[in-house]
Amino acid sequence: MEKLTIGIIGAGRIGRMHAENIVYIPNVKIKTISDLFIENAKLWAEQIGIQNVTTNYQDILNDPEIDAIFICSPTSTHGSIIKEAARAGKHIFCEKPVSFSTEETKEALEVVKEAGVKLQVGFNRRFDPNFKKVHDTVKEGKVGEPHILKITSRDPEPPPAEYIKNSGGLFFDMAIHDYDMARYVIGSEVEEVYVQGVNLVDPIFEELGDIDTAMTILKFENGAIGVIDNSRKAVYGYDQRLEVFGSKGSVTAQNEHPTNVEISTKDGVYKDKLKHFFLDRYKDAYMIETHAFIDSILNDKPLVCIGNDGLQAELIAKAARESFETGKPIKLIREEYSLL
Amino acid sequence: MEKLTIGIIGAGRIGRMHAENIVYIPNVKIKTISDLFIENAKLWAEQIGIQNVTTNYQDILNDPEIDAIFICSPTSTHGSIIKEAARAGKHIFCEKPVSFSTEETKEALEVVKEAGVKLQVGFNRRFDPNFKKVHDTVKEGKVGEPHILKITSRDPEPPPAEYIKNSGGLFFDMAIHDYDMARYVIGSEVEEVYVQGVNLVDPIFEELGDIDTAMTILKFENGAIGVIDNSRKAVYGYDQRLEVFGSKGSVTAQNEHPTNVEISTKDGVYKDKLKHFFLDRYKDAYMIETHAFIDSILNDKPLVCIGNDGLQAELIAKAARESFETGKPIKLIREEYSLL
Amino acid sequence: MEKLTIGIIGAGRIGRMHAENIVYIPNVKIKTISDLFIENAKLWAEQIGIQNVTTNYQDILNDPEIDAIFICSPTSTHGSIIKEAARAGKHIFCEKPVSFSTEETKEALEVVKEAGVKLQVGFNRRFDPNFKKVHDTVKEGKVGEPHILKITSRDPEPPPAEYIKNSGGLFFDMAIHDYDMARYVIGSEVEEVYVQGVNLVDPIFEELGDIDTAMTILKFENGAIGVIDNSRKAVYGYDQRLEVFGSKGSVTAQNEHPTNVEISTKDGVYKDKLKHFFLDRYKDAYMIETHAFIDSILNDKPLVCIGNDGLQAELIAKAARESFETGKPIKLIREEYSLL
Amino acid sequence: MEKLTIGIIGAGRIGRMHAENIVYIPNVKIKTISDLFIENAKLWAEQIGIQNVTTNYQDILNDPEIDAIFICSPTSTHGSIIKEAARAGKHIFCEKPVSFSTEETKEALEVVKEAGVKLQVGFNRRFDPNFKKVHDTVKEGKVGEPHILKITSRDPEPPPAEYIKNSGGLFFDMAIHDYDMARYVIGSEVEEVYVQGVNLVDPIFEELGDIDTAMTILKFENGAIGVIDNSRKAVYGYDQRLEVFGSKGSVTAQNEHPTNVEISTKDGVYKDKLKHFFLDRYKDAYMIETHAFIDSILNDKPLVCIGNDGLQAELIAKAARESFETGKPIKLIREEYSLL
Repeated sequence: MEKLTIGIIGAGRIGRMHAENIVYIPNVKIKTISDLFIENAKLWAEQIGIQNVTTNYQDILNDPEIDAIFICSPTSTHGSIIKEAARAGKHIFCEKPVSFSTEETKEALEVVKEAGVKLQVGFNRRFDPNFKKVHDTVKEGKVGEPHILKITSRDPEPPPAEYIKNSGGLFFDMAIHDYDMARYVIGSEVEEVYVQGVNLVDPIFEELGDIDTAMTILKFENGAIGVIDNSRKAVYGYDQRLEVFGSKGSVTAQNEHPTNVEISTKDGVYKDKLKHFFLDRYKDAYMIETHAFIDSILNDKPLVCIGNDGLQAELIAKAARESFETGKPIKLIREEYSLL
Repeated sequence: MEKLTIGIIGAGRIGRMHAENIVYIPNVKIKTISDLFIENAKLWAEQIGIQNVTTNYQDILNDPEIDAIFICSPTSTHGSIIKEAARAGKHIFCEKPVSFSTEETKEALEVVKEAGVKLQVGFNRRFDPNFKKVHDTVKEGKVGEPHILKITSRDPEPPPAEYIKNSGGLFFDMAIHDYDMARYVIGSEVEEVYVQGVNLVDPIFEELGDIDTAMTILKFENGAIGVIDNSRKAVYGYDQRLEVFGSKGSVTAQNEHPTNVEISTKDGVYKDKLKHFFLDRYKDAYMIETHAFIDSILNDKPLVCIGNDGLQAELIAKAARESFETGKPIKLIREEYSLL
Repeated sequence: MEKLTIGIIGAGRIGRMHAENIVYIPNVKIKTISDLFIENAKLWAEQIGIQNVTTNYQDILNDPEIDAIFICSPTSTHGSIIKEAARAGKHIFCEKPVSFSTEETKEALEVVKEAGVKLQVGFNRRFDPNFKKVHDTVKEGKVGEPHILKITSRDPEPPPAEYIKNSGGLFFDMAIHDYDMARYVIGSEVEEVYVQGVNLVDPIFEELGDIDTAMTILKFENGAIGVIDNSRKAVYGYDQRLEVFGSKGSVTAQNEHPTNVEISTKDGVYKDKLKHFFLDRYKDAYMIETHAFIDSILNDKPLVCIGNDGLQAELIAKAARESFETGKPIKLIREEYSLL
Repeated sequence: MEKLTIGIIGAGRIGRMHAENIVYIPNVKIKTISDLFIENAKLWAEQIGIQNVTTNYQDILNDPEIDAIFICSPTSTHGSIIKEAARAGKHIFCEKPVSFSTEETKEALEVVKEAGVKLQVGFNRRFDPNFKKVHDTVKEGKVGEPHILKITSRDPEPPPAEYIKNSGGLFFDMAIHDYDMARYVIGSEVEEVYVQGVNLVDPIFEELGDIDTAMTILKFENGAIGVIDNSRKAVYGYDQRLEVFGSKGSVTAQNEHPTNVEISTKDGVYKDKLKHFFLDRYKDAYMIETHAFIDSILNDKPLVCIGNDGLQAELIAKAARESFETGKPIKLIREEYSLL
């Protein structure tokens, strides 16, 4: 394939970011963007040179000129759009999670498999240069057999109540990124999950049946053990760290700061707090992720993050929720869609 | 009290280190040191100016001139020596753990309480300037209410099989330090414990009914949650880190390196691996710990680390062992010896 | 002004980088790019949507639709193009240095002054977020009165002989950036210059009458003293550091690495060497610099880096060269074009 | 030699520190300490077990039991005491500088040479583990041929006026340590010196004919160039850094902080300011220095820091003073006492 024509479904914050990353990639054009409230995005779309806007995403799926789509609509719509798009022969980039129900996800993956289209799931952090280097270091055996995984993942501030309500909860909305990272860097599937979760940040989470602070313990099939700690509120910024410890050493990725400037006075040494949030911290990762998807289609290369990766992360999130609700460790029942 | 006369029971590595730290403190003298194999220590004892050596620790307990003792003998002897020493009216510094059985520990604490002597338990890390600053920062409220605790605690290499056999296992020998640190920095008691433990370093641990790699999840009474990861083998040195995350921020203590020198070449940037092990890493902490004990006796100040602290850490270790054996979270039954 | 039309003179590495940064700024378009060897750049120009290409830069200056130009041609042409462009009423962004002769620079600035157009000199490092924060910290008085300035500025590898020949030498080509930074962060003019310069990297420099390793000592009018060390070859990457020490403290900007990943093994702790060179290290700075120039024209805001800044840096470079040649400290004769 | 008996001349801050470091070294005893005001030190001397105190240092030199002496009296007395002690056959540890006059120093070295005793000069920083590692790294060729040296050396606060008056001035009192470090890590002699010095911290320095802020540029015989910046007042602590840059890389030693604890809040990231001053920062270095001197005598090993090192540093200090006074670079006239 020499040229690629793209449609984007959803013109919210993430849809626009993807559009802006795509718009100047050589040999690629965004033909259409859809959104229920597309009026709000019309001026913006025109400025960055997108030809058509529509309220109906079917216009994109029915357009034979469009080769690939980005699904940036609410999670509740992902499953059905994936199926329709796959049947229409479009390659698919879908934001995480694929769905809130592993059954729905599996159905969608079946259709994708039959259609033979490509499906990339939006686990952007795999494309972060720091985290990718941790992954590569482990894969190259530089730290030996992995024994212990530690992920720190804390948001700078809680989302609005409205968002929490439809988010799927901490496990499906927030920790799911970390569950994917865990599989990605350890290179082994999760066998058992235990969660200790609490409400410490804001009572709104409890009112909505959610939690705001959690620790997930993972046992991997290769024997390694891992821990992920999540909080909805780190006042010093977006805290995103990663460590893999193994038989021959350890590898760590630290946080990023807006500048590295240090000020020393009689009161101590000061530096900037962390980069504020994901659009800032993972700016490069989002860019690289989009290029990788397009490169995979244009040059028929394998994807880094496939439908099965979406499913596995959801299986872990589901077990995490169950562990939280029962107070017990939960064994995962393995299901794989390895052909995807 | 103006002058202090001390006896040391046990002339192994730790006993000698305490002796060398004590020997030059003004107004303090070591009168006697005992060890079953005291012949090996005779020359050393003479060189640092200890007056008497004996194979019988009773010689120390029966000496009316001796005000305080350091118990540095094997753990299996701690309980009975504490009781005898307390009844003989000696102030007691006892290496951790107080015993391998919380029943035995409680008995010993009862006797100490009745005798009205001071008992300091050797949780040396409380006196490490880095960890103490973490504790003080949390206590002063600078990070708000504590939400998440993270402790990394990895030895540079496994002990010999002979040591493992009599060590009490990973929970009583190694993690017990971290359990104490958890209580110390969070300032709240542990309510529930869950452990994920594995054998990855050396099959000898499994053969001896022990493990070498573990993760302990703690739930505290104040709502905070914590995780401790332990390994018996970190090839890059003695990995000792601490983090408390709270509603107003976080505080971390990092590892220490022999030097801070960085070498930059075409291949990258290199620095020293970590300080090798506890005598090196906690050299200052051991010194400060000893001064604190002596200061407490001479000037009747409160102790930083009392018998009850020893008991609480053992209760956690016991629950950790039970969680490891049953695969379930274990609730702690609270028992306290607050008067000690 | 609502829309801006731009012409670019010179389609080499720097000209193309500016073009790519400009091309997607809203309300700005690049109409024409000129280069003596424009054939090589034709395909690239088409891809990024530049309308016209030409071998003759006069086509740009004569085009009444063009509001502003970027001068990215060889330094020997800067002076005359500035004068022609100013007389044609174009706003000017000119790469550093303005010329190799302070006389020529002063003539150009006179013409710019008369024409009343804006002239920004391409000292991109002023726009680097780290260095800007150092500047702001000093300006806000957080480190008190500045006493000592230290700049480290080392290239990863020497340029080709052909480049060295026409570069103006280490003082005019390389250190001039640091001379500007010195004035920018200290906020005072240079009074005296002393240089110790040597040939240690490659004999080619000596053959061409140049040096490859230098230390410049600056005395500022406000009493502060500074040192800049330059080398043409730092095998570990592009070494760019800055420190201002004052009566109330100090502020430092450190190097940047491609990732912050650390790998710990039995041999030590490793991390990436530095970002490789200026297009990588100052990527954001170049972007911000271009936006600032355009913002200044569209919204009539003051420039951060004016013609006089170009002149002052050249006066220092000239004195540095003289000090190197005579082995003596050189007093600067103050000349200013403060209206520019 | 199996046992060593030592006398200490001078019971001020430095004399006492050396005594406390020596007192517990096996096979070494301090027999006598002298001081004009020995009354003030009597109680302290008794407590640490020094047998005799005297107001007359001749008592030490005339005591045939004493093998070696530490000269910790005012600098003005060093030269004559060295000569007397050497003639009396004592090995000598002398605090820096040997004298304020290179003529006097050379005379003293002549006598030492004839007497065949050992003379160690108290450049304690050579024994700092960080700086020693920089030295070793350079010596092992890991950074290739050295090109650039950078030393930062700033005191936390100015000494009292009384001290300044008798200190020999910034070059002989403070920078002399850095001049020695320069020779030590570069492994080549200094050929030329240029100084830019100013009064910015306190007018008292100017009143006493001294300065408080200086930059010394060094040219070495091997072609390398170096810079040392000194200030009498760094409000954030004792700033002591070192960097050697060479053909194959660079090596740096950073500052030390009392703890490595970092506190992150909504306002940024904070850590401790630097260790406060030399007794704190170089505590280990002083200890190692003393052991090295004693080891050299007992086991007839070569010294790390000999009389000639004292002389060379003074020659540089003298040239630095001359450069400051004349405003010109000064060539050093090489004189060496290599046999010492």
